[in-house]
Amino acid sequence: MITIGLDLGGTNVTAIAHDGAKVLASTKHRTPTTGGRSDVLDLLARAVDETMDAAGLKRKHVAAVGVGSPGIVTDGTVGNASNVPGFQSRFALDEEVAARTGLPVRVANDVTAAAVGEHRLGSGRGEDDLLAVFVGTGVGGGLILGGRPFEGGTGGAGEFGHLVVRQGGAVCPCGRRGCVEAYAGRRAMVLAAERAVAGGRASILFEVMREKGKPRPTSGVFRDTLQRGDALLTELLEDAVATLAAGIATAVNLLDLGRVVVGGGLADKLGAPFVARIEAAAQRSLFLQPPRARIVPAALGDHGGAIGAALVARDD
Amino acid sequence: MITIGLDLGGTNVTAIAHDGAKVLASTKHRTPTTGGRSDVLDLLARAVDETMDAAGLKRKHVAAVGVGSPGIVTDGTVGNASNVPGFQSRFALDEEVAARTGLPVRVANDVTAAAVGEHRLGSGRGEDDLLAVFVGTGVGGGLILGGRPFEGGTGGAGEFGHLVVRQGGAVCPCGRRGCVEAYAGRRAMVLAAERAVAGGRASILFEVMREKGKPRPTSGVFRDTLQRGDALLTELLEDAVATLAAGIATAVNLLDLGRVVVGGGLADKLGAPFVARIEAAAQRSLFLQPPRARIVPAALGDHGGAIGAALVARDD
Repeated sequence: MITIGLDLGGTNVTAIAHDGAKVLASTKHRTPTTGGRSDVLDLLARAVDETMDAAGLKRKHVAAVGVGSPGIVTDGTVGNASNVPGFQSRFALDEEVAARTGLPVRVANDVTAAAVGEHRLGSGRGEDDLLAVFVGTGVGGGLILGGRPFEGGTGGAGEFGHLVVRQGGAVCPCGRRGCVEAYAGRRAMVLAAERAVAGGRASILFEVMREKGKPRPTSGVFRDTLQRGDALLTELLEDAVATLAAGIATAVNLLDLGRVVVGGGLADKLGAPFVARIEAAAQRSLFLQPPRARIVPAALGDHGGAIGAALVARDD
Repeated sequence: MITIGLDLGGTNVTAIAHDGAKVLASTKHRTPTTGGRSDVLDLLARAVDETMDAAGLKRKHVAAVGVGSPGIVTDGTVGNASNVPGFQSRFALDEEVAARTGLPVRVANDVTAAAVGEHRLGSGRGEDDLLAVFVGTGVGGGLILGGRPFEGGTGGAGEFGHLVVRQGGAVCPCGRRGCVEAYAGRRAMVLAAERAVAGGRASILFEVMREKGKPRPTSGVFRDTLQRGDALLTELLEDAVATLAAGIATAVNLLDLGRVVVGGGLADKLGAPFVARIEAAAQRSLFLQPPRARIVPAALGDHGGAIGAALVARDD
């Protein structure tokens, strides 16, 4: 059976054709930042078509489409996704994509879809109690409990970035204090670096950004800046490691998880040593001894969300 | 159908006969602190007999026995319960109690059982995504997810007292840093008060304890000390409220819970105003807006664990 998986991000739409074991073809488009909901929906339909073409598939070969969407997903509808035009107020995303593609459509939260991908085909294989943490611009989380995606009663579960690990601490981009994302998200770390530099601290972060010709400090800029020994970013990364570790230990202690998979743009760029540091720090806060939870790097990279969406589409 | 519920605590064994709607009779015995596992098991069997007698029941009227036990419960076995003699290494508690009582036995973690009680007959009625938090000597938690008790892959879930909410903060009785219980458990608060008094801070906590003829500061001593305006204990309680709130918000953000029930010896003594303060503080850290999670006082009091155990026994 072949399905198409779509990963709708704030920046890109990644689409893949998948046969249940491997990616047959993939395409990537910029997510519209202007216009409205129908521009996004039209792009999703075009991405499906182009991915079928790239894989040499006709519509009759494709069983279903899976969509991983930001926001809160309930029964095929999505809402509360502020970084995609027209996705703030709730609507039936499954019906809209089905109408445009003529294919059955299943919708999941994008991070949940990525967790499904890691669970079935990535670093989460063989473990049915799993948290997948994605560290990029922000910090997201997806849960697998008892072998199945867990999205909570109203689809709002998995907000790993907003576990409170330093109560009363730094202000998070969400406006609250002491969340994991307030220390471990790239957006929050850039804001902290800007404040420190404005206050007179030295850092080559923004110089490296300009050298690499980037409009903002990407995960690659972070990696290169750290490799050059920048003291400020090294300190910020220590806080990120410590708070990710505290949040992961918290989730493990609450849910008796067997594995935590760490991925996302920043984690992928910093690689296994970054995840090993998180694991070492988390050991200090794990309640069950000896701990059964392993903390491992994600395996599927950029395509994980689309692969998970393709797998979710197979389930119906 | 009538079942007997046993709540095995470090101090007391509470037993009740229950018809699914109400308590028919109850008994209370001191948990043996010396001797071995068989002394505890013999007491559990005696508690069943005496409770049947108190309710005017014969063995043939009782369908099953439910046991709520501390420690980690898996498939009727229990282990890792350090405060009950002989319950540290794992053994088949269900078989031992069945052999002594001649009745079918179901075992659950004591806090999970109490959560089941609140879910079915207490403050958790009508909500299938629920955390029950119990604040006493320590801080425990029990989860109901999708309407069913959630104990995790190896029975170790629900360690709410060991969520990390002040990463790098105060040392918890568990030896780790920054856990909820490090601030909100009575044992930790007494240790903090002792240290403060030794360091010259004034407090009437230990004076009230002596006035009430108690060997240690009980929840009642806490309540009376707070009512008399003790500044030190008031400060410690503020930290307890803040950390309970952060832990509850963390659990809600991770699991999209609809309700959190707060009980246990200290919460029951301090009553609804204490829980209202926790709810007000938690609102600042809840991610979903408007929040759907309500934070409410537990309804079943001291008998909650035994009632939950009796309900668990009905399920087979």
